[in-house]
Amino acid sequence: HQCNSIKTVTLIPGDGIGPEISTAVMKIFEAAKAPIQWEERNVTAIKGPGGRWMIPPEAKESMDKNKIGLKGPLKTPIAAGHPSMNLLLRKTFDLYANVRPCVSIEGYKTPYTDVDLVTIRENTEGEYSGIEHLIVDGVVQSIKLITGEASRRIAEYAFEYARNNQRASVTAVHKANIMRMSDGLFLRKCREVAENYKDVKFTEMYLDTVCLNMVQDPSQFDVLVMPNLYGDILSDLCAGLIGGLGVTPSGNIGANGVAIFESVHGTAPDIAGKDLANPTALLLSAVMMLRHMGLHGYANKIETACFDTIREKKVLTKDLGGNSKCSEFTADICRRVQDMD
Amino acid sequence: HQCNSIKTVTLIPGDGIGPEISTAVMKIFEAAKAPIQWEERNVTAIKGPGGRWMIPPEAKESMDKNKIGLKGPLKTPIAAGHPSMNLLLRKTFDLYANVRPCVSIEGYKTPYTDVDLVTIRENTEGEYSGIEHLIVDGVVQSIKLITGEASRRIAEYAFEYARNNQRASVTAVHKANIMRMSDGLFLRKCREVAENYKDVKFTEMYLDTVCLNMVQDPSQFDVLVMPNLYGDILSDLCAGLIGGLGVTPSGNIGANGVAIFESVHGTAPDIAGKDLANPTALLLSAVMMLRHMGLHGYANKIETACFDTIREKKVLTKDLGGNSKCSEFTADICRRVQDMD
Ligand SMILES: CC(C)[C@H](C(=O)O)[C@@H](O)C(=O)O
Ligand SMILES: CC(C)[C@H](C(=O)O)[C@@H](O)C(=O)O
Repeated sequence: HQCNSIKTVTLIPGDGIGPEISTAVMKIFEAAKAPIQWEERNVTAIKGPGGRWMIPPEAKESMDKNKIGLKGPLKTPIAAGHPSMNLLLRKTFDLYANVRPCVSIEGYKTPYTDVDLVTIRENTEGEYSGIEHLIVDGVVQSIKLITGEASRRIAEYAFEYARNNQRASVTAVHKANIMRMSDGLFLRKCREVAENYKDVKFTEMYLDTVCLNMVQDPSQFDVLVMPNLYGDILSDLCAGLIGGLGVTPSGNIGANGVAIFESVHGTAPDIAGKDLANPTALLLSAVMMLRHMGLHGYANKIETACFDTIREKKVLTKDLGGNSKCSEFTADICRRVQDMD
Repeated sequence: HQCNSIKTVTLIPGDGIGPEISTAVMKIFEAAKAPIQWEERNVTAIKGPGGRWMIPPEAKESMDKNKIGLKGPLKTPIAAGHPSMNLLLRKTFDLYANVRPCVSIEGYKTPYTDVDLVTIRENTEGEYSGIEHLIVDGVVQSIKLITGEASRRIAEYAFEYARNNQRASVTAVHKANIMRMSDGLFLRKCREVAENYKDVKFTEMYLDTVCLNMVQDPSQFDVLVMPNLYGDILSDLCAGLIGGLGVTPSGNIGANGVAIFESVHGTAPDIAGKDLANPTALLLSAVMMLRHMGLHGYANKIETACFDTIREKKVLTKDLGGNSKCSEFTADICRRVQDMD
């Protein structure tokens, strides 16, 4: 049973191939009759009071109202001092959990066939604190900041996720043998939270060991939770196992339902505007979004159609090994979702 | 032409399976008539003046005299405040470069067949500074310390290594988009040093991108140079690509020829003393040592014999997929090196 009141979502098409793949997603959603209405916003950073970079008020207000966003790739700012928009968005809406399910895609060949895991990355602190100092000439320090509060919050998110998604185990990834206090605090919080989730198995593993085991046999992993930088690394590594950022969805989750789902690949300026882009990562991110909104029926329908198109190998974009255009790939998925009715 | 004066090397057999695999290496060296004499030393840490942990004077003196060491696995100390012996050794002898060649082993199946790269890890600073503070209750900081001096030194090591080992490119691995000052300094030094090695191609890549590309196609990488923690992660990841720590050699290199070569796997207490251990990682580390000492003929002979034994698949230890004992695997390699004469 699905609620059919139409919900509004903030759409940030992004740069480069962003608009094309956003259009693809909108078409597929329309074909699936998903009860979503899009509110398009631009997020090029502006300088606010006191010279602080901020996202434009129209985008901020839209997100504050809708709570849910879908975002294409944004080009990396080149101006010195200009912030990464991705980081600014995470910060502005306190999107503390970055969630990336990595599942092997049938028909899309990689060296691995049985990947089925989720990386959950702390998204607000750690090595991304932005605090750095020049101590003396030639000596620099960067500060990794870990709080018990943020560690507990992300650990709770991971265990809730595991419980709600029928996942059997959570592994805390750390280097507490080296960063005894900071990663030690993170790990302690994971252990404390684990006490409240006796139905979910809890294990801990060093980051280096995870990486080694991951490339040897990814099927041994389930839900992984970790501090910010380790999540940056592991989530990309795992994306590589299933075919790269072009097929990997991502969600940034905050408190009270606020969330932005995004494709994490680049803007691919070389093929932008040529109807050659692969919309899969953004589409699967939009599927995550539907699930986050409780719209599981639409999510399953669209996901199935997308995987069917990939498995059948008849209509694929170039990066997926085919010769079709973005619009043809999109049309094939649309046809399938319509056929399901 | 090889110098046949016998050289003395400090041998640290280590714990668990350490003594067995050390014996295996000594036997193979003897069969190859390698001009090496072993000086065995124990390195269990002791408390020195002022309560500082230090390695025992007999081990220190032996290394100071011989400059070259070969080391088996050491068990992780469990006493609080007791240092990791691996870290203490790196520090004591200022072994600033950790070098791990990762090359696919013919006959030992993994998802990858064409790995041929070397990770070069800064071994003395970065995230391993050991400086951490409790700011207020529940808020901890760890300090990542990067110096221009250590960055230049490791960059120079990497380029020298590339040049001396007929390797075409060096890739600096970093997150200077996030840690702009610290990784920025590291990267700047790499760029500066690259200017002096126009014969070696220089590229830079984000750590997350390296991980993703690595699992998709490791053959694109050659020599990789990076700060401490990134090296810890990437070196293990790459070891995983070729079969794990049981077959991956490692060298810790300092100034003036000082170096300790070591297997980086664990002590495997469950099989210790049972003649079941695989000596390959320690043996290949000893082969690296021979090359470091200029004894290329012996190195090539032993390495070839080891790879032949693995490729032939008749006499393999359990972890390599066989049923043979450590002593049988060792004897097979000995026979081959003797047959080469
Ligand atoms: C764009 C960049 C700032 C970002 C990061 O380092 O977190 C990216 O790699 C990611 O994973 O979203
Ligand atoms: C044993 C441990 C301290 C060490 C490290 O983290 O550096 C190990 O993982 C390594 O790579 O040598």
